[in-house]
Amino acid sequence: MSLIVQKFGGTSVGTVERIQAVAHRVIQTRNAGHDVVVVVSAMGKSTDVLVDMAKQITAEPPAREMDMLLTTGEQVSIALLSMALQAEGQSAVSMTGWQAGITTEDVHTKARIVQIDPATMQDALAAGNVVIVAGFQGITEDGQITTLGRGGSDTTAVALAGALKADLCEIYTDVDGVYTADPRIVSSARKLTTISHDEMLELATLGAGVLHPRAVECAKQHGVPLVVRSSFGYEEGTRVQEEVDMEQGLIISGIAHDKNVAKITVADMPMQVDTMSKLFTTLADEHINVDVIIQSSYEADTTNVSFSVSGDEVKRTLQILLREKEHLHFGYAVAEEELAKVSIVGAGMITNPGVAAQMFRCLADAGIEIKMVSTSEIKVSCVVPLEQMENAVRSLHTSFGLDVVERAVVHSAQ
Amino acid sequence: MSLIVQKFGGTSVGTVERIQAVAHRVIQTRNAGHDVVVVVSAMGKSTDVLVDMAKQITAEPPAREMDMLLTTGEQVSIALLSMALQAEGQSAVSMTGWQAGITTEDVHTKARIVQIDPATMQDALAAGNVVIVAGFQGITEDGQITTLGRGGSDTTAVALAGALKADLCEIYTDVDGVYTADPRIVSSARKLTTISHDEMLELATLGAGVLHPRAVECAKQHGVPLVVRSSFGYEEGTRVQEEVDMEQGLIISGIAHDKNVAKITVADMPMQVDTMSKLFTTLADEHINVDVIIQSSYEADTTNVSFSVSGDEVKRTLQILLREKEHLHFGYAVAEEELAKVSIVGAGMITNPGVAAQMFRCLADAGIEIKMVSTSEIKVSCVVPLEQMENAVRSLHTSFGLDVVERAVVHSAQ
Repeated sequence: MSLIVQKFGGTSVGTVERIQAVAHRVIQTRNAGHDVVVVVSAMGKSTDVLVDMAKQITAEPPAREMDMLLTTGEQVSIALLSMALQAEGQSAVSMTGWQAGITTEDVHTKARIVQIDPATMQDALAAGNVVIVAGFQGITEDGQITTLGRGGSDTTAVALAGALKADLCEIYTDVDGVYTADPRIVSSARKLTTISHDEMLELATLGAGVLHPRAVECAKQHGVPLVVRSSFGYEEGTRVQEEVDMEQGLIISGIAHDKNVAKITVADMPMQVDTMSKLFTTLADEHINVDVIIQSSYEADTTNVSFSVSGDEVKRTLQILLREKEHLHFGYAVAEEELAKVSIVGAGMITNPGVAAQMFRCLADAGIEIKMVSTSEIKVSCVVPLEQMENAVRSLHTSFGLDVVERAVVHSAQ
Repeated sequence: MSLIVQKFGGTSVGTVERIQAVAHRVIQTRNAGHDVVVVVSAMGKSTDVLVDMAKQITAEPPAREMDMLLTTGEQVSIALLSMALQAEGQSAVSMTGWQAGITTEDVHTKARIVQIDPATMQDALAAGNVVIVAGFQGITEDGQITTLGRGGSDTTAVALAGALKADLCEIYTDVDGVYTADPRIVSSARKLTTISHDEMLELATLGAGVLHPRAVECAKQHGVPLVVRSSFGYEEGTRVQEEVDMEQGLIISGIAHDKNVAKITVADMPMQVDTMSKLFTTLADEHINVDVIIQSSYEADTTNVSFSVSGDEVKRTLQILLREKEHLHFGYAVAEEELAKVSIVGAGMITNPGVAAQMFRCLADAGIEIKMVSTSEIKVSCVVPLEQMENAVRSLHTSFGLDVVERAVVHSAQ
């Protein structure tokens, strides 16, 4: 008998009917001879409703009380799922984060898990129960209720799987796996049967809503076998694992894209050692998330710095720069909007030089202007005009041989 | 500096605005130099919404999971109230039942409080916080979340007041005190300034929604000074205390009524030792709540038993009797509906014989037929025709001298 941890997100438990559907799937897993621990998120938009009430009371709700408030969402889900299982004759026990033995840092709204004591869960499993754990939450050593922040429920599932030495952690979501590209853009996109942890991390944008990078990190660290699959169908999902069978020798696993990118250039900055640190510390203090950064100098004593931000942050970024103009000593700042980022991701590129060159050639052949470039060991990203993003994704998908339909069944977009 | 426990019910925290109003009242109490522990219920109808979801999943939700589900309601309230207090600059800490140190029996949906460890609350108070505790909930010794059942939040408040040796426990509700009779029926009804615990218990029907009998019992046992007052105004409420100053020598404190009563008669039962026990065990097993019971025998070997039930239970009671006719060996059963129960309550009657006689005479003078009678040490109840109930209440109110308007200000009906 093996132990499987199954995680269902907010959409999967969004209504009473869906909770009942989740119960049926859990029972099927049980009937196949497995022990099951289920991790659930809050129902659909229920967290938004709670946040909304808090915001009506105060613009900046104290973090401790936000955690007290929001953890009720998952607690409702675990109770209802346990009822649904018991209504079908499957014995089940729901557990809040603290009941499941999840200890976190003494930080509110974004605590990290420090330790998991699996004894209570193991006792309940041994007694024949399905164990249902509230995702996203834990408790500090001195008894304060905390939440794990973004990606918290995915992280709970992976961490529990690690602590329980589970044979598999299944993340159920509203898509049926990780694709070589967004099927809405590339009709010949294929679902990947396997992907490495690092590739999954780099594909975060493609996988937005599929699997949170934190959970992937956690799975990588603890060697937890992970599968992403659909809660609405029974197709095989995508397995995230360290040893990838190289996907039939493909260098690139997938093409990711982000259609909401802007480029900001800060010109005529003094060429000093702390120029870059002053600029990006100022932005970080204001929680501006900067992605690609390029520094270039045309003259000996001044430098231009360009960086990309989310399209939603352009206005605020420019306001901050203007406010700090004296402090930062730059000449002028300009923004270029309506851009997109296209990335190729694949562990294969480590051992294959010339991948970046192939990408640039492919984009040039397609007549696509490259605005900015950034690279990591297993990723090359190009910022391009938004209007050419889809063309870029399709061209790259073909260029890197991802269009080939082989063993895997091609799935249409959700 | 004294310590006051204040309890606010679901209506008092029904909306964000009302939660903010509660915060203001708490701050006023603080500013008057008192330490404050606040106990709150779930917001308005939020418990009903949760119960409704559970019922959609299963007709009989498991008790443990109902507790897991329903305790989230109070947890939402404590978090929001703490935010509202902090938004006004008052430091505050919210606590679930288990965080506040409330241990209960190992029973779900109707657990009794076994013990309260006030240390965590006392530490938080000493640090200058208002402490906000989720009513209606606790935890078993082995970490299961429980609820206290009906009247649970009132009971939490009184029990905390006892454990903290509070100087006062204030129950805020949507009426401004306990009246000598329902002001909607008796226009000259007076609000009582004081009432004894026992009288308050007997007036439960008059006080429906005002103060739960369990909380009164608990206050009596632990000698907790208790006040019932309105959360919408600043009038003095009614003080529930052991030593009552006899309310200007009145024998009767109030007139209670229940307008939804039916009388059921089971005729021609065999005159055997276990006849009564068999009949009422059968009804108890089916959760039929029986109030007044009268047994009479006209012949040597058979007996007739009459009892009163809630008007809503008549049909089900007759069905059960019919089903068990063989087992119970009775001749026939009939129901008389459209009845009401009128009660006079007062500790003074213990030392004043003839109170029951005065009640019967008063009703007879008013031409009101008495269908059934039951008495306790401090209460006499008569079942009368529903159409004569209001007449009965008014006549008794006058007959027992309650109409007199004296020191106390007369309040109009809510």
